[in-house]
Amino acid sequence: MAKKLSGIAASAGIAIAKAFRLETPDLTVEKQTVDNPDEEIQKFDASLEKSKAELEVIKQKMLEDLGEEHAEIFSAHLLVLSDPELVDPIKQKINNDKVNASFALKEVADQFISMFEAMDNEYMRERAADIRDVSTRVLAHVLGSPIVSLAEIHEEVILIAEDLTPSDTAQLNKKFVKGFVTDIGGRTSHSAIMARSMEIPAVVGSKTVTKDSEQGVTVIVDGLEGNVIIDPSEAELAEYRQKLADHEEQKKEWAKLVNEPSVSKDGHHVELAANIGTPKDVEGVLNNGAEGVGLYRTEFLYMGRDELPNEDEQFESYKKVVENLDGKPVVIRTLDVGGDKELPYLDLPKEMNPFLGFRAIRLCLEQDDMFRVQLRALLRASAFGNLKIMFPMIATLDEFRQAKAMLEEEKQKLIDKNVEVSEKIEVGIMVEIPSTAVMAPQFAKEVDFFSIGTNDLIQYTMAADRMNEQVSYLYQPYNPAILRLVKMVIDASHAEGKWTGMCGEMAGDEVAIPLLLGLGLDEFSMSATSVLPARSQLRKISKEEAESVATKALELNTSEEVKQLVEKTFL
Amino acid sequence: MAKKLSGIAASAGIAIAKAFRLETPDLTVEKQTVDNPDEEIQKFDASLEKSKAELEVIKQKMLEDLGEEHAEIFSAHLLVLSDPELVDPIKQKINNDKVNASFALKEVADQFISMFEAMDNEYMRERAADIRDVSTRVLAHVLGSPIVSLAEIHEEVILIAEDLTPSDTAQLNKKFVKGFVTDIGGRTSHSAIMARSMEIPAVVGSKTVTKDSEQGVTVIVDGLEGNVIIDPSEAELAEYRQKLADHEEQKKEWAKLVNEPSVSKDGHHVELAANIGTPKDVEGVLNNGAEGVGLYRTEFLYMGRDELPNEDEQFESYKKVVENLDGKPVVIRTLDVGGDKELPYLDLPKEMNPFLGFRAIRLCLEQDDMFRVQLRALLRASAFGNLKIMFPMIATLDEFRQAKAMLEEEKQKLIDKNVEVSEKIEVGIMVEIPSTAVMAPQFAKEVDFFSIGTNDLIQYTMAADRMNEQVSYLYQPYNPAILRLVKMVIDASHAEGKWTGMCGEMAGDEVAIPLLLGLGLDEFSMSATSVLPARSQLRKISKEEAESVATKALELNTSEEVKQLVEKTFL
Repeated sequence: MAKKLSGIAASAGIAIAKAFRLETPDLTVEKQTVDNPDEEIQKFDASLEKSKAELEVIKQKMLEDLGEEHAEIFSAHLLVLSDPELVDPIKQKINNDKVNASFALKEVADQFISMFEAMDNEYMRERAADIRDVSTRVLAHVLGSPIVSLAEIHEEVILIAEDLTPSDTAQLNKKFVKGFVTDIGGRTSHSAIMARSMEIPAVVGSKTVTKDSEQGVTVIVDGLEGNVIIDPSEAELAEYRQKLADHEEQKKEWAKLVNEPSVSKDGHHVELAANIGTPKDVEGVLNNGAEGVGLYRTEFLYMGRDELPNEDEQFESYKKVVENLDGKPVVIRTLDVGGDKELPYLDLPKEMNPFLGFRAIRLCLEQDDMFRVQLRALLRASAFGNLKIMFPMIATLDEFRQAKAMLEEEKQKLIDKNVEVSEKIEVGIMVEIPSTAVMAPQFAKEVDFFSIGTNDLIQYTMAADRMNEQVSYLYQPYNPAILRLVKMVIDASHAEGKWTGMCGEMAGDEVAIPLLLGLGLDEFSMSATSVLPARSQLRKISKEEAESVATKALELNTSEEVKQLVEKTFL
Repeated sequence: MAKKLSGIAASAGIAIAKAFRLETPDLTVEKQTVDNPDEEIQKFDASLEKSKAELEVIKQKMLEDLGEEHAEIFSAHLLVLSDPELVDPIKQKINNDKVNASFALKEVADQFISMFEAMDNEYMRERAADIRDVSTRVLAHVLGSPIVSLAEIHEEVILIAEDLTPSDTAQLNKKFVKGFVTDIGGRTSHSAIMARSMEIPAVVGSKTVTKDSEQGVTVIVDGLEGNVIIDPSEAELAEYRQKLADHEEQKKEWAKLVNEPSVSKDGHHVELAANIGTPKDVEGVLNNGAEGVGLYRTEFLYMGRDELPNEDEQFESYKKVVENLDGKPVVIRTLDVGGDKELPYLDLPKEMNPFLGFRAIRLCLEQDDMFRVQLRALLRASAFGNLKIMFPMIATLDEFRQAKAMLEEEKQKLIDKNVEVSEKIEVGIMVEIPSTAVMAPQFAKEVDFFSIGTNDLIQYTMAADRMNEQVSYLYQPYNPAILRLVKMVIDASHAEGKWTGMCGEMAGDEVAIPLLLGLGLDEFSMSATSVLPARSQLRKISKEEAESVATKALELNTSEEVKQLVEKTFL
């Protein structure tokens, strides 16, 4: 019997394929006394070799798909497996204590893990995680239930998991993983953002998909509505095959708009841009007809590696993006880590409330050696296209002035060395902290542009962690409080002849788009796959009507009232 | 040689006394084989008796000073020490294994602690903490280095500690503890708030006081300026004795204003009220000439105990306060727990960002059985004085409407049962979430009053955890963004003929007071000890001039500029 689940529509599209459950096999270990330790040592050696071979394959795949920095972690894992300091004690324990290989392996690995975990250094604690990863892989082989790597999937599947980490999603091969469904997560979780950027249909937060689906069962993922059907009936399959076809048809219609301008019914032009995480995402930007990059999240350059990326490495990435955009604007956000995005090698202290903590520009202004490396890379890349620089998490004018001053200093130093730098680089800020929205009139005199980051702005304005399900009812993009803040920012920028964009999830939302058009937003930056649907929607709305609806919305009492007003008028 | 430290001035006043270091003695245990286990058992029994005797004294002291609810925890501790399930296995272990008492005690206690800690229930995990507390006390006796309890201090001291928990501060006896200094904490930490409410001079966040001071050395605490002098010279002692005398003189001057009205130089009247935590604090409210209670934090009723307070218990507390205030207004805030204020028996989930989590009204609306008990107690107490009800952490109109509806339902039920309830109870909200400040015009149509909670409002508006030292530079009460939000709230309330108060730390701050007067704030609620200095300051300022300064401040760029403007004009 088919089972239906509903979750959060995280990435648009429909996919139908067999379930592939990402699960950890049962790796329970029991202590056994063995008569022939040599046999156990052989079993251990064989498992070691199988594990190394697997890691080589994964490493190679990473290298091809995502580049050297992502492959490095697996080189490190391979080194662990060749380290006599780990391997020898395991063999000795088997021999001396006459115990089974799995027990000896677990005992010795656990000792190392505890030792590293107890160290007062985030970097060493990460080494504990490496040892856990690789010893689990070897143990699985010893126990005869090997772990499957996402990179090893070679048939079309729907991936089913409790959750996917950023490194899990980085390993996904779009050719085989047609969709995914998770138990937990929300629309702004990293796995959801990655799914949209990779254009893989996905439903997150289904709560029970891992419980309800078996390996190999057929699964329908409806990333348009947030529905999942496990083991569908023939009728349901037919229905969704039709929906899939309709969606493909719809996409073809949208595709006709690739080279069309983004104008409202009454001729008002706005810019529809895309958010990207890596240079690889540029392909999707261009294919979807985006008019620029409204947010390039540079933190991915810093993640999944053991040390900071150097200036040249950063320069190459930024240059590649601006060159490929060929004169179209590229807004590059400086490093935004901390909060839910950790960089182990920075060894930042654990915080009670990381979302209200030492992150993004706060960290960069203090660790300015690191920050200046990025600024120089950005300045050098500015000579190759239309590059704009944006500082995240600005809360006060002082912070903006400090960051701007560092940028000017580095610029002058480069000019003194005859390094080419663009003469006119726009420098703007994310508006994602309430104080900055309220102070927009003062900021507008000093910045070149604003980009409203709604994911954080909503979370801070409502004082509700957007990852915490118990307060998710307060994540209200249409709350008149949010609209009022957005209006303050747009009005302030226009009063000074500047422009305002938006690069949060809200910019691509069909209820929000008419409101934002009505409030006068200049640039909408969203997942690349949302650009054409947004253009299609915009072309059907008149700005005059949108303005009148937005004006009414500001005076309403609740998010729900606003949503109903927009739906009644435009949808 | 004298050593000077500077920290955060947490509670005004000057104190000079010997240092009393709050420290845990070295309780390292080594396993020893003993020839005569009976001697060890005797040693253990004797330590048990000493510990019980100590706990009886502490319990009695708590009963006298703070009432039954605070004493109960020590009754629980006494029960643990009489429990044969804990005591017998320790004696058996000494006897059977022929080991020393300290080792046997530690082994058995640790087993119980691990067992309770592993349980999936916050309440049982708290029992682990009880066993740890009492077994540490006994162990200290066995090892001959008994733990000193704060309640046992019987000479005048300056308490020196890394930090003080709310239960530490609850045990402080003002008669003997003349002041305290801690390594960590900020002006809005609970120990700082308690110090002000108990009128004990205090400096927090000195970073190194525990390192720099020895037991018994003379210490000067300057809670006016945030300075600490360890082992002062004769000259410094003389200087601070003079300052202490001056401060006493100043207090006498202020005391003359106890029955004077709170009016500006040009005759504008405002209300100066006090914040309280328990009925015992009312004495300070009246002694300091406050015109009402602007914030009664009811969560203290719920803390330091094993179960929810029942309706009658709450009713008695609320009634006592409103009766003692004798017709003056008493604003009672409904339960504000979660975040940094945990109630173990509610068994709330651990959160990634507790300050952005499931707390205060969010919790109460979901656990409405608990909430309705408090509402009934408040409604019944309303018949005995001028009681106003205030909901904390309101982020949306929906939440206010839900809470108000529950209040109306309970009111009707009481009226149906002929229970007396005041006919006109004002029902207001805390404005401590940015969305609510921005939506003040809509809220003002439905609430009876606003009270701005600046501690949280600043933290959310600046997106900076006020407990996190790395971002403490962003805790900016004078930032024009905060002033603009405050103005929005006041203007919105006046437009609907309602009033606005403020019950955060900012209301008693000498730089903020002229700004708030200028913005039109109606009620200022602060620590009782700040009321007379605030009245003294107010009487010297003209509202007209304050208005002109506030108008200028709104247009400034930074917190620092605002501070300088106020200081230049008024201080």
